[in-house]
Amino acid sequence: MTRPATVVAMSAQVAERIVRGPVRGRLTRIADVHQIVDDFARADLSRTEVLFTSWGCPPVTAEVLDRAPGLRAIVHAAGSVKHHVTDACWRRGIAVSSAAAANAEPVAEFTLAAILFANKRVIDIARAYRAARTSDDWEARFPGFGNYRRTIGVVGASRIGRRVIELLQPFAFEVLVSDPYLEEDLGARRVGLDELVAVSDVVSLHAPDLPETRHLMHAGRLAAMRDGATLINTARAALVDQAALTTELASGRLYAVLDHTEPEFLPPGSPLYDLPNVLVTPHIAGSLGGELTRMADLALDELSRYARGLPFEHPVEPDTLSISA
Amino acid sequence: MTRPATVVAMSAQVAERIVRGPVRGRLTRIADVHQIVDDFARADLSRTEVLFTSWGCPPVTAEVLDRAPGLRAIVHAAGSVKHHVTDACWRRGIAVSSAAAANAEPVAEFTLAAILFANKRVIDIARAYRAARTSDDWEARFPGFGNYRRTIGVVGASRIGRRVIELLQPFAFEVLVSDPYLEEDLGARRVGLDELVAVSDVVSLHAPDLPETRHLMHAGRLAAMRDGATLINTARAALVDQAALTTELASGRLYAVLDHTEPEFLPPGSPLYDLPNVLVTPHIAGSLGGELTRMADLALDELSRYARGLPFEHPVEPDTLSISA
Repeated sequence: MTRPATVVAMSAQVAERIVRGPVRGRLTRIADVHQIVDDFARADLSRTEVLFTSWGCPPVTAEVLDRAPGLRAIVHAAGSVKHHVTDACWRRGIAVSSAAAANAEPVAEFTLAAILFANKRVIDIARAYRAARTSDDWEARFPGFGNYRRTIGVVGASRIGRRVIELLQPFAFEVLVSDPYLEEDLGARRVGLDELVAVSDVVSLHAPDLPETRHLMHAGRLAAMRDGATLINTARAALVDQAALTTELASGRLYAVLDHTEPEFLPPGSPLYDLPNVLVTPHIAGSLGGELTRMADLALDELSRYARGLPFEHPVEPDTLSISA
Repeated sequence: MTRPATVVAMSAQVAERIVRGPVRGRLTRIADVHQIVDDFARADLSRTEVLFTSWGCPPVTAEVLDRAPGLRAIVHAAGSVKHHVTDACWRRGIAVSSAAAANAEPVAEFTLAAILFANKRVIDIARAYRAARTSDDWEARFPGFGNYRRTIGVVGASRIGRRVIELLQPFAFEVLVSDPYLEEDLGARRVGLDELVAVSDVVSLHAPDLPETRHLMHAGRLAAMRDGATLINTARAALVDQAALTTELASGRLYAVLDHTEPEFLPPGSPLYDLPNVLVTPHIAGSLGGELTRMADLALDELSRYARGLPFEHPVEPDTLSISA
């Protein structure tokens, strides 16, 4: 067991939140951490063997690699590595690990809670109750609401989509999944996207943001959703034709939980803030606060495996990047 | 297999919502339903063998029993039987079944979603985002928030409490349970109520409303809760000293999700409506809308067992009523 020479590379704000307390202690026990940087220009990479990275890590370009002759691994304490792991890294054969599995967890948890609250109209009823300051006939107002025997459509068998399907198992739901690349049985019925959209009470998006998924939920598919159905987007805003969705939501026909919008933070005049049938959150479903520790814990497990000469348990394979997040 | 002579007894509104569609079809196949009533004065009970009941069923008094010499079973398509099954029924040896198990499910689901959203501050952030119409440093505003390694305290190993404990298993939580009558291992650490209250990030109430549980969460216990902790009450308002809780909530020190309050619907001037750290709902966690079908489905299974001469799968035992809901 060696203590690999390691540079921590991430934004200063993220480093401050991740590299502290027990995580810092464990990191310095496993690795010989010789620098914490948010910019490779300031980094001495001459003897660096491992980059321990997170959000805000600058791209590891060919030029950076030239200055890091001993670099063998990049251990990422966050999800997607697309922003900093360049083709040059793959060509050099750098081993890459990602904590995307840990980052999937809070998004799946957020989605599960959003589904349970959406079918039950919890946020809607709380708002109506607060506004009216008296009870109402909620069953007349929201016919057939509740979580019994509802159909949940999971769009994309990504890591997050798969975890959502797992978390939905204890409930009285029919779970559908649509993914052009899915071949195995995940405990959800595989259907085409158009069928999924037409029969689901909740449509939850977990597909990657790729050219071919842009406006996957176009006006026609939104129009095909059932009256009173809920669209949940914890993935990327580009998956949805937001103008068409806003029209559907303004009519009151659909419900939505939107953690991603275009732009990322809505302009003050956006109707999405005020529509009673929309819960809009500012990109919070992923790891935040104490959840950064989960990603750091997974990345430290990976760093420890590397130090013991073991392969990563969560390696990133370059050939899957074109169809994932 | 006989088709037992059955009277349906429940409020007209509930009957209209339950006894329809597939439920009505199955009910009339299993049983010989000769009347649907909301008042026993109008009922001919001379040949009735089974009462199929739900919310709004009047008390089955000794006088009612006198008019029902052949009555052998009461099958309740809802939770508690306390309001209509009298001592006279127990003395007569009437077999009683309850759909409390089915009614526990939506409450446990509501609680799970409330826990996941509370730790993540989802409702709070959505409100703040809507008010400010710009993003903020949520981690600075809600230090350490998120669902990783939080401690969840379940007060009461009732049917609902047990289901909540089960539903919490897939997550990175430490789950505690406090119940003076609990002896078996439910997959949650058994602790005293004072310890539970002092160490939990979420305290969720699932104890019955009994004289000895009144103000279980008194001012001292509320004061002992951790800064930033959340109290969830889907049980009964009497479990909480609401005046003391309101003071804690007004200070911003605690969070709350309250599906039960005193009075049941808050007066228009109640501060609980407007506090940003409180989600108040008008007694909706239990079965509503499509969830009534779940209770009806369970009760129909029980009625079918009775018709086939089998014992109930969800019998109510009179000697447990004094310590349950």
